[in-house]
Amino acid sequence: MQAYLDNSATTRCSERAKNLMVKILTEDYGNPSSLHNMGKNAEDYITEARAKIAKTLKVAEKEIVFTSGGTESNNMAIIGAAMANHRAGKHIITTAIEHASVSATTAFLEEQGYEVTYLKVDRDGLISLEELKDAIREDTILVSVMMVNNEIGAVEPIEEAGRVIKAKNPNTLFHVDAIQAYGKYRIYPKKMGIDLLSVSGHKIHAPKGTGFLYIRDKVKVKPIIYGGGQQKGMRSGTENVPGVAALGEAAAEIYENFDEKIARMYALKERFIAGVTQIEGVTVNGRTGTDSAPQIVSVSIEDVRSEVMLHSLEEAEVYVSAGSACSSNKPSVSHTLQGIGLPKKLLESTIRISFCVYTTEEEVDYAIEKFKEIIPFRRKFTRK
Amino acid sequence: MQAYLDNSATTRCSERAKNLMVKILTEDYGNPSSLHNMGKNAEDYITEARAKIAKTLKVAEKEIVFTSGGTESNNMAIIGAAMANHRAGKHIITTAIEHASVSATTAFLEEQGYEVTYLKVDRDGLISLEELKDAIREDTILVSVMMVNNEIGAVEPIEEAGRVIKAKNPNTLFHVDAIQAYGKYRIYPKKMGIDLLSVSGHKIHAPKGTGFLYIRDKVKVKPIIYGGGQQKGMRSGTENVPGVAALGEAAAEIYENFDEKIARMYALKERFIAGVTQIEGVTVNGRTGTDSAPQIVSVSIEDVRSEVMLHSLEEAEVYVSAGSACSSNKPSVSHTLQGIGLPKKLLESTIRISFCVYTTEEEVDYAIEKFKEIIPFRRKFTRK
Repeated sequence: MQAYLDNSATTRCSERAKNLMVKILTEDYGNPSSLHNMGKNAEDYITEARAKIAKTLKVAEKEIVFTSGGTESNNMAIIGAAMANHRAGKHIITTAIEHASVSATTAFLEEQGYEVTYLKVDRDGLISLEELKDAIREDTILVSVMMVNNEIGAVEPIEEAGRVIKAKNPNTLFHVDAIQAYGKYRIYPKKMGIDLLSVSGHKIHAPKGTGFLYIRDKVKVKPIIYGGGQQKGMRSGTENVPGVAALGEAAAEIYENFDEKIARMYALKERFIAGVTQIEGVTVNGRTGTDSAPQIVSVSIEDVRSEVMLHSLEEAEVYVSAGSACSSNKPSVSHTLQGIGLPKKLLESTIRISFCVYTTEEEVDYAIEKFKEIIPFRRKFTRK
Repeated sequence: MQAYLDNSATTRCSERAKNLMVKILTEDYGNPSSLHNMGKNAEDYITEARAKIAKTLKVAEKEIVFTSGGTESNNMAIIGAAMANHRAGKHIITTAIEHASVSATTAFLEEQGYEVTYLKVDRDGLISLEELKDAIREDTILVSVMMVNNEIGAVEPIEEAGRVIKAKNPNTLFHVDAIQAYGKYRIYPKKMGIDLLSVSGHKIHAPKGTGFLYIRDKVKVKPIIYGGGQQKGMRSGTENVPGVAALGEAAAEIYENFDEKIARMYALKERFIAGVTQIEGVTVNGRTGTDSAPQIVSVSIEDVRSEVMLHSLEEAEVYVSAGSACSSNKPSVSHTLQGIGLPKKLLESTIRISFCVYTTEEEVDYAIEKFKEIIPFRRKFTRK
């Protein structure tokens, strides 16, 4: 038995996405910039992918720019918006619990002379709309807030934040890192006041190396990569046609029978939480149920260090994450867990479990069983 | 019969690269940043790919940074070197015939206050080493020269340029865009004085969306994408493991039986040139034989416009390019063809034929046959 419960780190590529990719790699391998029909054919794949994605967001096709992944999308949104709008101001607002692809990017902009305000979060990982409102100034050009936190699954009040921002300063752009949210929520940027939205392919069963940035029509963003002028000059470089097509396919696929899929994940989450919290000294961080994301559970385990737990589970072929997996396997203290005020002794005893649409009850039950075996066993050493 | 002779635009993915990719997409799909063994397994694929590539260049594994493709590699080399070294000076030298991923990037740096010198080329598309030497100054931080021109296959004197640069100013970095050269030449950066070398995957039968930048040890380059600190902080973002592994495989594969492959391409090139130049008013641009790249032929056809030729060939399933395909299908006048002083009337009557290791004599003969049919037929309309 194996249980891959690290889907917020990355997911398996779907069969449909993979099959499309293979066809393009070996048969329809033209360059979209070529003027002959092999080029046209390649371009059609991109157009179709763009249409599939635009449909899931209810936006126009031309508002989608393909990137090499979520990190590039976040960089492009933040650096691109800053560079295009610096004459209107150099103030940016974000939160204390963003993914490194946002926080390292705003840190770079601080070096470049921008001023960045980091909003605090409460014990559930949520920002205060009041604090957001107070932070917005005349010279605030950008607010960047993640929709679903990657470590604890907190869901930020995006729609309300959109309203607060536009009411206080209609010129302030609103960027949403939706990397853990897309495919788990119906996200409609037009309705939610979102100007820029980042998505990663490999979190939704598309291949790694794919992603997109939604850029609302007329919003000014400067490209961060220059060259042949592909994608209307917004992202130069030969388009990753097989990847783009696979991303379009995975995006369409994930939103099929959507409510059913999400209900299944919430049921798995509830089942998992019910199981693990029977164990003494095991607590779940942040909100649960539909007040939290369907796929992420953050569990703190008294007296068992996260690496120890992770490697013990790994021996049983249960795969989880110690905090966020996206930090290049350097185990450093998590900003999110610090941000929600987790007691010091639990900061290094917290693991993340994350589901996907393919996760089964059997996997969850198997994982619970292993938690029940491992935790008392490991505590024998730490508690004596 | 079909003849895909647009391999400098893009190539078909090799079976070996594709098979490895598929295995990783669906079986070994872990995130290299995950601490469990699925993560470790993913990381091993990257390590192996890096080793395979480093071996082809005779460099250290740690000197290879994976990117999303040639355009990103060129951007990272040029912007990254400029940002990391601007205190030493703000002067950059490049040539008048670079690919847009270099020329648009240096144009961006000009906006940012850098000064850029563009070296002229002779009628064969070659820079003058004398002119290069004279252009290098105390404040020259970077020289960027392509190894093989993508439109006419001119081969720049890279090794000699490396010597000239280092003799005049040892602090000047030397970047080589090897996107059309890697897999066609043995390139040894250490011997050739190259500090930075850009490569694209999809030109060597690896998937689109892959590439790398060689950065010589101790050379200072600032990243252009920020985040989780992957690849020692040089290129954040979850690594495109299937793409990276496929790139490593394709790189190893292309250098197997290398001399034989290259000799075959030169023979095809000679065969093609012998055939088409029998047609009146058809000339080949730049040098030929081993004084030029094995895979590229630039052909000017009096009184037949390139688009007309391209589409007529397309009807016979012969795929070629009008100038360079990488300029997002906007047919604009080619800097390279202007740079070599091509007569005005031929500027818009030039097409590019490009081979790969899989190109056959039959394809070449079929293409020649079609050239012989189409050209006189099309001229009937233009010459009357």
